[in-house]
Amino acid sequence: MFETGHFATLWRNMAVALGLEVDFVPTDWRHGVDPEVVEQKLVEDKGHRIKSVMAVHNETSTGVTSKIPPVRAAMDRAGHPALLMVDTISSLASIDYRHQEWGVDVTVGCSQKGLMLPPGLGLNAISEKALQASKSAKLPQSFWDWEAMLTANKIGFFPYTPATNLLYGLQEAIHMLEEEGLPNVFARHDRHAEATRRAVQAWGLEVLCADPQEYSSSLTAVMMPEGYDADALLDTILKKFDMCLGIGLGKVKGKIFRIGHLGHFNDLMLAGTLSGIEMGLSLAGIPFSKAGTAAALEYLADTLG
Amino acid sequence: MFETGHFATLWRNMAVALGLEVDFVPTDWRHGVDPEVVEQKLVEDKGHRIKSVMAVHNETSTGVTSKIPPVRAAMDRAGHPALLMVDTISSLASIDYRHQEWGVDVTVGCSQKGLMLPPGLGLNAISEKALQASKSAKLPQSFWDWEAMLTANKIGFFPYTPATNLLYGLQEAIHMLEEEGLPNVFARHDRHAEATRRAVQAWGLEVLCADPQEYSSSLTAVMMPEGYDADALLDTILKKFDMCLGIGLGKVKGKIFRIGHLGHFNDLMLAGTLSGIEMGLSLAGIPFSKAGTAAALEYLADTLG
Amino acid sequence: MFETGHFATLWRNMAVALGLEVDFVPTDWRHGVDPEVVEQKLVEDKGHRIKSVMAVHNETSTGVTSKIPPVRAAMDRAGHPALLMVDTISSLASIDYRHQEWGVDVTVGCSQKGLMLPPGLGLNAISEKALQASKSAKLPQSFWDWEAMLTANKIGFFPYTPATNLLYGLQEAIHMLEEEGLPNVFARHDRHAEATRRAVQAWGLEVLCADPQEYSSSLTAVMMPEGYDADALLDTILKKFDMCLGIGLGKVKGKIFRIGHLGHFNDLMLAGTLSGIEMGLSLAGIPFSKAGTAAALEYLADTLG
Amino acid sequence: MFETGHFATLWRNMAVALGLEVDFVPTDWRHGVDPEVVEQKLVEDKGHRIKSVMAVHNETSTGVTSKIPPVRAAMDRAGHPALLMVDTISSLASIDYRHQEWGVDVTVGCSQKGLMLPPGLGLNAISEKALQASKSAKLPQSFWDWEAMLTANKIGFFPYTPATNLLYGLQEAIHMLEEEGLPNVFARHDRHAEATRRAVQAWGLEVLCADPQEYSSSLTAVMMPEGYDADALLDTILKKFDMCLGIGLGKVKGKIFRIGHLGHFNDLMLAGTLSGIEMGLSLAGIPFSKAGTAAALEYLADTLG
Repeated sequence: MFETGHFATLWRNMAVALGLEVDFVPTDWRHGVDPEVVEQKLVEDKGHRIKSVMAVHNETSTGVTSKIPPVRAAMDRAGHPALLMVDTISSLASIDYRHQEWGVDVTVGCSQKGLMLPPGLGLNAISEKALQASKSAKLPQSFWDWEAMLTANKIGFFPYTPATNLLYGLQEAIHMLEEEGLPNVFARHDRHAEATRRAVQAWGLEVLCADPQEYSSSLTAVMMPEGYDADALLDTILKKFDMCLGIGLGKVKGKIFRIGHLGHFNDLMLAGTLSGIEMGLSLAGIPFSKAGTAAALEYLADTLG
Repeated sequence: MFETGHFATLWRNMAVALGLEVDFVPTDWRHGVDPEVVEQKLVEDKGHRIKSVMAVHNETSTGVTSKIPPVRAAMDRAGHPALLMVDTISSLASIDYRHQEWGVDVTVGCSQKGLMLPPGLGLNAISEKALQASKSAKLPQSFWDWEAMLTANKIGFFPYTPATNLLYGLQEAIHMLEEEGLPNVFARHDRHAEATRRAVQAWGLEVLCADPQEYSSSLTAVMMPEGYDADALLDTILKKFDMCLGIGLGKVKGKIFRIGHLGHFNDLMLAGTLSGIEMGLSLAGIPFSKAGTAAALEYLADTLG
Repeated sequence: MFETGHFATLWRNMAVALGLEVDFVPTDWRHGVDPEVVEQKLVEDKGHRIKSVMAVHNETSTGVTSKIPPVRAAMDRAGHPALLMVDTISSLASIDYRHQEWGVDVTVGCSQKGLMLPPGLGLNAISEKALQASKSAKLPQSFWDWEAMLTANKIGFFPYTPATNLLYGLQEAIHMLEEEGLPNVFARHDRHAEATRRAVQAWGLEVLCADPQEYSSSLTAVMMPEGYDADALLDTILKKFDMCLGIGLGKVKGKIFRIGHLGHFNDLMLAGTLSGIEMGLSLAGIPFSKAGTAAALEYLADTLG
Repeated sequence: MFETGHFATLWRNMAVALGLEVDFVPTDWRHGVDPEVVEQKLVEDKGHRIKSVMAVHNETSTGVTSKIPPVRAAMDRAGHPALLMVDTISSLASIDYRHQEWGVDVTVGCSQKGLMLPPGLGLNAISEKALQASKSAKLPQSFWDWEAMLTANKIGFFPYTPATNLLYGLQEAIHMLEEEGLPNVFARHDRHAEATRRAVQAWGLEVLCADPQEYSSSLTAVMMPEGYDADALLDTILKKFDMCLGIGLGKVKGKIFRIGHLGHFNDLMLAGTLSGIEMGLSLAGIPFSKAGTAAALEYLADTLG
């Protein structure tokens, strides 16, 4: 598992809590999964002790989107039987992702981000290979016991109390996404992400994600100038403008803030968001240039469909 | 009655339709009620044929807010018994207004603007003098027959089917307004109106309302440069940014557009609104300076409580 | 206009308030419109002073449904040019009604009964003949000025502020009605009305509507035994069971209560309603037989589709 | 752990899946936890291998409510250090329950029953002793890792994404419960449960719960006459009356059906519910007496506050 940020760390901790041995690859939180490291580790694992390669597609805490197909290719080159498991919490329905086409074995998603619903639904896509592995696995399984769910789902039921209200919401969310067209949804988020990065650059600040190939289209993490506290800035923005931005988590706490631009989001919401940050930066006495919102607006106006 | 805009005209038409004789004072739609004209007309009306002076407090179609106390003072100076009737459709709960203190006889309001509710409730405040007048009036009365409403209201009922859902909404709206405090609500709208006017000025455009004493705090009407169609601009903004601004009505159709900043509205909503207009002006090829949003943001940041 | 109950009286009062001369035919509130009286009055009106025959299709205050086609036939036999105007407030979308097929000139409906919405929408169907008449009419017109509405509606607009939220609700209500099928909706209400009458009969009470041909399928008014106050009964039911039934209005105040069974209503809601009344009758010490709910349930079980 | 029904079995399975050794006491599903068995097992466990006594307070699948204080007393008599853990899924806020007063160590509840909310919140009450035990426990912990939650909750946060919408709902649910008063809420459910049992008895059917001391006030499971399928009955009731009752689960599948009377529920909802069952029993050709609804109504009318 790769340490691309706070949520990768949480997944690691959960796996460890469940008694799993985890080979956790430390990173600088500014880059995604490195397929070469995956290949090397798998090649070295002659005894096939590694059961699964786990990656977070879009790290919610850093705004880094790992490329999954190269990871799959690395695994294939190594000829290793490990499963590929991917967390799509903050990318599902916001950033292009292809469970089957990319050869992923287990994909985990949720209701409360790109699907525009309240939290409460976890969504799993499972390959035949993963299903077989789960049947022979000796690990404790409870929430992750797919069998009960698969059996009941076939006849239209849930083995436990279903979140019926969210299932109706999911139906409507999917209808909305199909009405817009998934490619258009992805393009919309790409465009808002680019506009956000132009604002960040014009402010004279830096995006946390260091590799343009890995920029996230659903959120952008922004680094504070040395010596300025991100949490104090967000506190000011919350109090003055009633806008809640994402704080830095884990090892970047206080050093970054995060701008979400996913789900039901449009040009003017982004304009309002960036305006609030720009005014907040002023109020917090942070050295920056006021040209950010204007730069984003210019890009948005230039790229209208 | 004074022609301060489209809605004053509608009221005139309704009055005429009900068989009333109306002395309608034409204006340029850029100014409010002139108390001197009121005084003069009443002084000349030796026979007291004039039954009522009717004014629109805040003209929704022009963004002109007439000063009501000077009108009352003019009526008092003339010593004339006419009633004073005021339309507060787009000012109630957004701009300071005092039915009793200002000596108004009939005030008409609604649910769907400053009270932040769907349309469906009409609100009337009635002086004792107006109530007496309605009892002796010979005019056809149906919706305006206050007696049935007053009798039923006393015991907690309505004479007809009440919009119960809106009454619950009204209770919550009043709770929200009291929680913020009406003076704070008014100050919030004053500040957003000033920020809007600064944006208009920075764009190089002109506010329709010609007298700064009569600027509306709930909406701002903006004049288009000669030769440019406001409706085409709004159509572009609606299609590109999913934002619906107010068109010009009546004799200013196509010549102005209107920016609403009333009800449940905050700094970042205004920032999004102005950003959408600024991008729309660009797209529509209208000659303007892009400095509007920035000017508004600067004012907003400088005047935070 | 026929006095079939309280709402017919209200319409009369409104017409009088608007300065109209009304020939109001008094009735016992237990029968609907008598076509023979209509024919006779029109035949006698050689000078065509009568401009309109007005009827309430389903009297909400009495549960009497007037037959409209015989009224039309009577008018045709008399060869009189008067318009036929019908109030369908509590029948629209609950009881079969055919504006065009029955030759009605003006039909008035609303959102808050059979259309299952909050109050706030008035719906008018207007014949070409009525439209022409309105153009030459000399009456004061304001809310009833169809021209402004017709012109704006053609291009998808309203001349005044529309109740947009209710229009969305109307779209969904119509979708629900079409999904069930209007004939099924009408049959559902017919069946619930018959079950209700069987309960009333089994209780040993009497239905206000005296003519089985005129029984209402959307509500049933029940006569109290001599010497017992209906309002006291309803007060007990409200306090003990949180159920609000219709009180007697106008000249039947205190003498009847009304059971609504229209709109979104099913067998078990009716069972709950009748159970509440049955327990209420017990609590209020009214002489009756407890066999009502059981009789209704038996009929419902016997007539399931 | 005691097998009081299907949900006790599910808990057993989850515990087993997590690698725990479980001593599961089989029962006939018609009785609750037997404190004598608890005492005996603990006395015999000289080596203190038993870490926890687990009970379901109100078995949702059988309508049996176990008495918790006698279990606690049995544990105290045995002088055994095991924790007492109780599932209150279908009793919390419906049936009197006292975590602290009764000396329970871990109580588990949920949002979707007595708290009248959609599913999505799990609620845990934890004794100091349980907290200490969790710190030294060697079991895999992830969802059950209270530490992260306790730390974050202290400063008003959640360690993961909170179901904010449900927290607002919880606030309102608690407000509603306090407005009615918990003793009144419990008495309301007691009364509806008794009325339901009177209906069952009058129908000539039998309640599954065999001990009147253990009757559930939140739901009643009813046994079908020998040779009749409960699921077919419920299918008829669902199709004909749009009412969904609880099916028999696990080893009573097809043999019982369950009537819920918890949460936001009143006399007339119960009357509708029982009426639907009574008509369903008729339609399904099940031998029974039609006196059930009437018996319940009589009891309800006799016991009004």
